[in-house]
Amino acid sequence: MNSFGRIFRVTLFGESHGIQIGVVVDGCPAGIDLCEDDLSHDFARRRAGGRGTTPRIEPDLPRIVSGVFNGKTTGAPITIVFENTNTKSGDYTNLWNQPRPGHADLTGQRKYGKYNDPRGGGHFSGRITLGIVAAGVIAKKIISPLSIQAQLIEAGGSENITEAVEKAIEEKDSIGGVIECVCSNVQPTLGEPFFDSAEALISHMIFAVPATKGIEFGSGFAAARMKGSEHNDEIIDADGTTRTNYSAGINGGITNGNDIVFRVPIKPTSSIGIQQETYNFKSQSVQPLLIEGRHDACIALRIPVVIECATAIALADMALIAQQKTTVF
Amino acid sequence: MNSFGRIFRVTLFGESHGIQIGVVVDGCPAGIDLCEDDLSHDFARRRAGGRGTTPRIEPDLPRIVSGVFNGKTTGAPITIVFENTNTKSGDYTNLWNQPRPGHADLTGQRKYGKYNDPRGGGHFSGRITLGIVAAGVIAKKIISPLSIQAQLIEAGGSENITEAVEKAIEEKDSIGGVIECVCSNVQPTLGEPFFDSAEALISHMIFAVPATKGIEFGSGFAAARMKGSEHNDEIIDADGTTRTNYSAGINGGITNGNDIVFRVPIKPTSSIGIQQETYNFKSQSVQPLLIEGRHDACIALRIPVVIECATAIALADMALIAQQKTTVF
Amino acid sequence: MNSFGRIFRVTLFGESHGIQIGVVVDGCPAGIDLCEDDLSHDFARRRAGGRGTTPRIEPDLPRIVSGVFNGKTTGAPITIVFENTNTKSGDYTNLWNQPRPGHADLTGQRKYGKYNDPRGGGHFSGRITLGIVAAGVIAKKIISPLSIQAQLIEAGGSENITEAVEKAIEEKDSIGGVIECVCSNVQPTLGEPFFDSAEALISHMIFAVPATKGIEFGSGFAAARMKGSEHNDEIIDADGTTRTNYSAGINGGITNGNDIVFRVPIKPTSSIGIQQETYNFKSQSVQPLLIEGRHDACIALRIPVVIECATAIALADMALIAQQKTTVF
Amino acid sequence: MNSFGRIFRVTLFGESHGIQIGVVVDGCPAGIDLCEDDLSHDFARRRAGGRGTTPRIEPDLPRIVSGVFNGKTTGAPITIVFENTNTKSGDYTNLWNQPRPGHADLTGQRKYGKYNDPRGGGHFSGRITLGIVAAGVIAKKIISPLSIQAQLIEAGGSENITEAVEKAIEEKDSIGGVIECVCSNVQPTLGEPFFDSAEALISHMIFAVPATKGIEFGSGFAAARMKGSEHNDEIIDADGTTRTNYSAGINGGITNGNDIVFRVPIKPTSSIGIQQETYNFKSQSVQPLLIEGRHDACIALRIPVVIECATAIALADMALIAQQKTTVF
Repeated sequence: MNSFGRIFRVTLFGESHGIQIGVVVDGCPAGIDLCEDDLSHDFARRRAGGRGTTPRIEPDLPRIVSGVFNGKTTGAPITIVFENTNTKSGDYTNLWNQPRPGHADLTGQRKYGKYNDPRGGGHFSGRITLGIVAAGVIAKKIISPLSIQAQLIEAGGSENITEAVEKAIEEKDSIGGVIECVCSNVQPTLGEPFFDSAEALISHMIFAVPATKGIEFGSGFAAARMKGSEHNDEIIDADGTTRTNYSAGINGGITNGNDIVFRVPIKPTSSIGIQQETYNFKSQSVQPLLIEGRHDACIALRIPVVIECATAIALADMALIAQQKTTVF
Repeated sequence: MNSFGRIFRVTLFGESHGIQIGVVVDGCPAGIDLCEDDLSHDFARRRAGGRGTTPRIEPDLPRIVSGVFNGKTTGAPITIVFENTNTKSGDYTNLWNQPRPGHADLTGQRKYGKYNDPRGGGHFSGRITLGIVAAGVIAKKIISPLSIQAQLIEAGGSENITEAVEKAIEEKDSIGGVIECVCSNVQPTLGEPFFDSAEALISHMIFAVPATKGIEFGSGFAAARMKGSEHNDEIIDADGTTRTNYSAGINGGITNGNDIVFRVPIKPTSSIGIQQETYNFKSQSVQPLLIEGRHDACIALRIPVVIECATAIALADMALIAQQKTTVF
Repeated sequence: MNSFGRIFRVTLFGESHGIQIGVVVDGCPAGIDLCEDDLSHDFARRRAGGRGTTPRIEPDLPRIVSGVFNGKTTGAPITIVFENTNTKSGDYTNLWNQPRPGHADLTGQRKYGKYNDPRGGGHFSGRITLGIVAAGVIAKKIISPLSIQAQLIEAGGSENITEAVEKAIEEKDSIGGVIECVCSNVQPTLGEPFFDSAEALISHMIFAVPATKGIEFGSGFAAARMKGSEHNDEIIDADGTTRTNYSAGINGGITNGNDIVFRVPIKPTSSIGIQQETYNFKSQSVQPLLIEGRHDACIALRIPVVIECATAIALADMALIAQQKTTVF
Repeated sequence: MNSFGRIFRVTLFGESHGIQIGVVVDGCPAGIDLCEDDLSHDFARRRAGGRGTTPRIEPDLPRIVSGVFNGKTTGAPITIVFENTNTKSGDYTNLWNQPRPGHADLTGQRKYGKYNDPRGGGHFSGRITLGIVAAGVIAKKIISPLSIQAQLIEAGGSENITEAVEKAIEEKDSIGGVIECVCSNVQPTLGEPFFDSAEALISHMIFAVPATKGIEFGSGFAAARMKGSEHNDEIIDADGTTRTNYSAGINGGITNGNDIVFRVPIKPTSSIGIQQETYNFKSQSVQPLLIEGRHDACIALRIPVVIECATAIALADMALIAQQKTTVF
């Protein structure tokens, strides 16, 4: 299913080299200011162009084609589309014969058979995350003053990210990284026990972002080495502020008002400039493979804003649901 | 929402000290063998009683009250209930005045107000995971021969789990741990790109299990320190087997036939026998708190089977959906 | 799927001759008064016993087993179960060989194969509507002061219902009827354009009730013979009151504050005391069939309260959703 | 929610005078032939232009912008958009002051406040049903050889539709009608007991179509005047064929293989050329209102194909779900 959310519902569509990609955002309250310019800041953060990112620079010009009138959301579904302009499609027979390691070439073929769209990754392309960013910009407006900040805190095993990226470029290789995301001014009562816990919904969205390999909230994996007497966050005042925040602002699946903090490892870009060996289905043997073109040496550089926006989508849905759930009326 | 799944749909209900807890499993195909005894193996694994677990030993006797006839599932919703027998409820005023750190006492109060059921954790109780295990046993039958094995690989920062647990008991403290889960014989084509990626659905279920603090698939957090040339899993034969399995059997959100491998950190039990300090809403000041009774020194000991069953639920839903999605007909 | 609703979510389970039938109601706000006695009035209206209804009189004693504490809903899922006591099951081979006309015997067999539970109609039994009534009683509390009244306005083609029923009993035959349902004090803004129109959600629930053959809102089928100049409901004051109410209180899928009025035809009970002819799969020929036992001569007598409750469920879901949808915040 | 379906999921967006309207169809199997021309037949049937329909003739040229590659569906979401070209928007202050009777002007204002898009009906416009038709064309391919035929069997209370339409045009009034829809070659086992009965899902979709006032399956309202001995459809051969078909091919919510037959009344077009009286919120009194422009004298003429397509969407979802539900594997 290419949709997420119960009330604030986001639907993605499009392929890397298709005519349009886009997103439909349903369930957005009426009366929110929205215009194309509102998207430009987060789009710029996602865009390629810096060192370590691909030179495919598309304008990524969004068009809001429904759901907005006189600069305000109307309550009807908001659709934002992007034309694909940089879509010289070539011959994809090679991909079929020798699927690239780390990519979805083979799983796409297995799932959709010969009908899978191979052009530039088709619907698996990271370009589809433009829709996540667009929906996230709207979501951020809904959840304000809750604010979300994600940043790359480490890449290639190094805190000196620039250096690590330069080295990867030089080696024609790629590197991964770790993104940390902090949500502040979080209202209590978001999320539910069990299936719709705040962690469950946030992680669901985070794993909708390609290249994510994990998530840990608060203490995360370190919790496994801690004692209860250390890990329990002692409440220190009447608004629920805790001395420590190992629980990442969530108890029993429900936000407690402290910051939601989590970290996400990003794998190194699968496309690299170094020769690899992998199975060739035509020759029926393992063969060398060299992927042409230029690549993101560190895709993790572009993902923090996508993580922010994915998180905002999950929180907006929880916030809209929480408006009616908690008290008798 | 206390439900999960599009086709194989699981609904949990009940409170720790209520009359019954249980689970409704909708969308299960007809004709699967099912009786109460089928649950006993996984229930025994979840049960308290060993060193490091609570002495509250309930029989956990399941009753299948709908959806099964002559020992076979009928296609109608399957309901499995458990009577709560060990439910001496006392005075919960203290909990209200001084919510326990690490528990959902305060978030429950904030979300549901004075109507929150405080008895033994109410609907937040880990006891509700009995329903996850029951549904998971059914799910495992659906996805067979796919098999899932989860085990505690580390506790209290030590691989010598027994020793770590004994030390925690002695100190009246608690410890966390790491559970590793391996899914073998996985059919390709499970999961979808983006929102319903195999990782998204599995993680959604994993974070429905109380005390989980994170999840990492395959390389996980280590991916952040790897290069693409190391991380890419080279395909070595026609069935899609890869030389390494850093992708954890999933590319582009879709299973590739290799094992799905992930690890989950479990926090130390929040209830400990050591005095803590936390806010008392009656006295309006931080006060000492000593939680009475005996506790699980290492709740992680009981969770591997819950992780298995949560995973089975996610995979069963994907497997039933995958029956009709991938080919033209 | 045996569930309905986005926020107020109702899940049914059970079979006529199984151990328990019941309902899970998720998404109910905390703090609503609820006890078993609250169900007795509507249960009495649904119960058999009067002229024209079956003599199977079960106590229908509900047990609230979760979601209520100290007489108030807690915000956790509410489960209400009913033991089946009157369940002498006999030999169902005949049903398999010669499915009863008008019943789900054959469709159940085709869908679920030999695993279909044939006892007393299994999961297809009208007895399962007890769960709809129980959920509806809760829903009515949520939507109050909106009130719903359904009544049988015609049976057997006659407005003298008693007479028509007596005649049917005498003839060992059965008769249908028409139920009219009026919802008053309806708040504006419930429902959505298109897929979740108020009519769509109400009709979805109405067709979840066995034996319903149609639904018409306001002018209904008569609209086909009307002119626009007659049919348009002229607004006569500032609160949106209309002179006529052919639109049944709904425009563009959204309630306008006038009464929601609809009518539902109920088919004559399928089980009758008269010999019928129908296919016998064993003899591979059409054969006479006489259904033993006593039957509801007019099942429509028992259905008004089910229609009310089904409507309340749809409206409660709309009302909870409408709390956050219409205004910017 | 502007979406429908569990597996075959349709999302509508757009406004009458916005930039684009369209539809996203998710969950469509890969490998189905699809091009813009496939839509032209059903689009022509929906289009205005004949006697009794508006002279707003837009080309309705669809663009398939995602989900299709080399003329086949790829398994990714299919998006079809339509540019709005005939969108001279004027001054809508009048609409705000004096909402038109029978339209959604007032409910739209009440629900979305001053943010409601008033231009040409906004998101409430019948034009949005283009998306239903587009999705329905795809759905028809999925359910083939099941075929659906809907036709207008009566308008203005007359079987002589042409005459009735001419009279309405002459009188500057509008008339309603009745559409009958027959689904043939229906496979057994579609639909579920209770909430997802075939009738529930079909009616849900039918009431997503503006101007529908009711639905009756098979015997429908006539069932209320029939006896069980007449109404029961006797099975006459081994494939489940029945002598009569009052049940409309559905028992217990599940298709039995006989034709699904239902009728839908359509109200007379709300926009008429005759002066009406209705509340003016500015003058705070009932005032005359004359709607300018030309109108559909009988919108029912254009709706049969929309009914067909709405039905196809419901059946496609049931058919995809039914692929995996009924047998053990």
